[in-house]
Amino acid sequence: MSAPSGAPFNAQFNLPVRVYYQDTDAGGVVFHARYLDFMERARTELLNARGFDLARFADESRILFMVHGITVRYHRPARLNDLLVATARAASLGPASVEFEQRVERGPDLLVEGRVRLALVDRDRQRPVRMPAVLRQILETSG
Amino acid sequence: MSAPSGAPFNAQFNLPVRVYYQDTDAGGVVFHARYLDFMERARTELLNARGFDLARFADESRILFMVHGITVRYHRPARLNDLLVATARAASLGPASVEFEQRVERGPDLLVEGRVRLALVDRDRQRPVRMPAVLRQILETSG
Amino acid sequence: MSAPSGAPFNAQFNLPVRVYYQDTDAGGVVFHARYLDFMERARTELLNARGFDLARFADESRILFMVHGITVRYHRPARLNDLLVATARAASLGPASVEFEQRVERGPDLLVEGRVRLALVDRDRQRPVRMPAVLRQILETSG
Amino acid sequence: MSAPSGAPFNAQFNLPVRVYYQDTDAGGVVFHARYLDFMERARTELLNARGFDLARFADESRILFMVHGITVRYHRPARLNDLLVATARAASLGPASVEFEQRVERGPDLLVEGRVRLALVDRDRQRPVRMPAVLRQILETSG
Repeated sequence: MSAPSGAPFNAQFNLPVRVYYQDTDAGGVVFHARYLDFMERARTELLNARGFDLARFADESRILFMVHGITVRYHRPARLNDLLVATARAASLGPASVEFEQRVERGPDLLVEGRVRLALVDRDRQRPVRMPAVLRQILETSG
Repeated sequence: MSAPSGAPFNAQFNLPVRVYYQDTDAGGVVFHARYLDFMERARTELLNARGFDLARFADESRILFMVHGITVRYHRPARLNDLLVATARAASLGPASVEFEQRVERGPDLLVEGRVRLALVDRDRQRPVRMPAVLRQILETSG
Repeated sequence: MSAPSGAPFNAQFNLPVRVYYQDTDAGGVVFHARYLDFMERARTELLNARGFDLARFADESRILFMVHGITVRYHRPARLNDLLVATARAASLGPASVEFEQRVERGPDLLVEGRVRLALVDRDRQRPVRMPAVLRQILETSG
Repeated sequence: MSAPSGAPFNAQFNLPVRVYYQDTDAGGVVFHARYLDFMERARTELLNARGFDLARFADESRILFMVHGITVRYHRPARLNDLLVATARAASLGPASVEFEQRVERGPDLLVEGRVRLALVDRDRQRPVRMPAVLRQILETSG
């Protein structure tokens, strides 16, 4: 389960995320769907940190990541101006898919945890596509 | 489990939803977290259709619905200017919680389906609160 | 400046818009940028009401509307579960642009008013494009 | 017009902002209203950098910033995975208001520029409130 270099497969990426008014709702806390935005940011920055540019990938290979399924549990609410950490870790890889394990934390507190399953699909025909080796290697290796 | 009128507990509410640029992303389809927004709209309009005003409820009773967990599966993408239907059905009721079964459809096609579990919490202390009878009755009855 | 049928150039389109938690912020009111979303919905439905499908237009003609400038004044806040009306009216047409006059109202009250200027651009090169006659006619005519 | 320390009134704050799928639309660029979100982040971090916590301010003083007016001009579009800078500068102060001058840049290119006028209002009655001295000093001073 580890890459040839010995780097652990399950290396986790941590992204600081600030809560702004735009993320909150009239209940005084972060709106539940906004945590999925925070998680998307963490997944993208995990890839950026490993030299993988999603936008160039979509342009050059015509391959998109499509979210296939999500499971999220909410434990504690985040509030305006909180400084959070959104984490991302590629927990399992399929031939044409990846499942990320993600959390949103505030200091020692786990606020939200989720699993996000993404499929690689051809941009034009929306059909599953085998994961390119370069992407597989990146998801198996820490930055 | 049915109301005196015989209306079924599991009556489903259907809300038409149009897809605008604001809902889409650079992949050319609706961004995955936006379907949760569509589902929230359907839950709210189910309540409105039954005479239950969430905003007044929050003000008067100091009780909020807090999303506790979500599970969503994405089958087919929605696209710009699609006219969708978002559905909501109270699938199960707990003493202080409700689970909605929800779908997003385009004509005969199921695009997205989800389960959204909400807890009733005290607005000020964020503690679980027993569901008021009026709300329980509304969730058990069709409009 | 009017269509052959005599329909006024400046016919206004009115779209009902409900305020959900997703639109509000921790200040208890609608977040200021969300009114721009409401305005986009009204512009799109004005076009739909006149038989003009933005998505097909983008696909077939490779032309996009790009927002070029906005001016918005906020008079009164909208709140959770308010039922608003978002209006759109094509106030002036240029060779490759259109300016919409838009309002968000709650009953007799004007909450927000704005001017949104859009340019027609070629999708691939992002260069200004002359407005097709069919679109010009639609914007000059009421539904 | 400068603080005792000699720091210029118009010191500008710069916030790096990454563009994610959540910010883009089916036109392949950032959706126009999302730039207002980027600008809100820059205003908030300008305050945070100067030790002013908006959330605590709202709780303790019962005062909110309400957006009163915006003027935005869009010059060039931002794209997926772009690394932008959102700037904020308090350009003028009134007794109960502040106007920010803001830009969104990508390297040497100005993409979007705006003026955002905010009023200070009492949270409960939504009436204008005189700007507290501590806030005035912070807006007049660089970090």
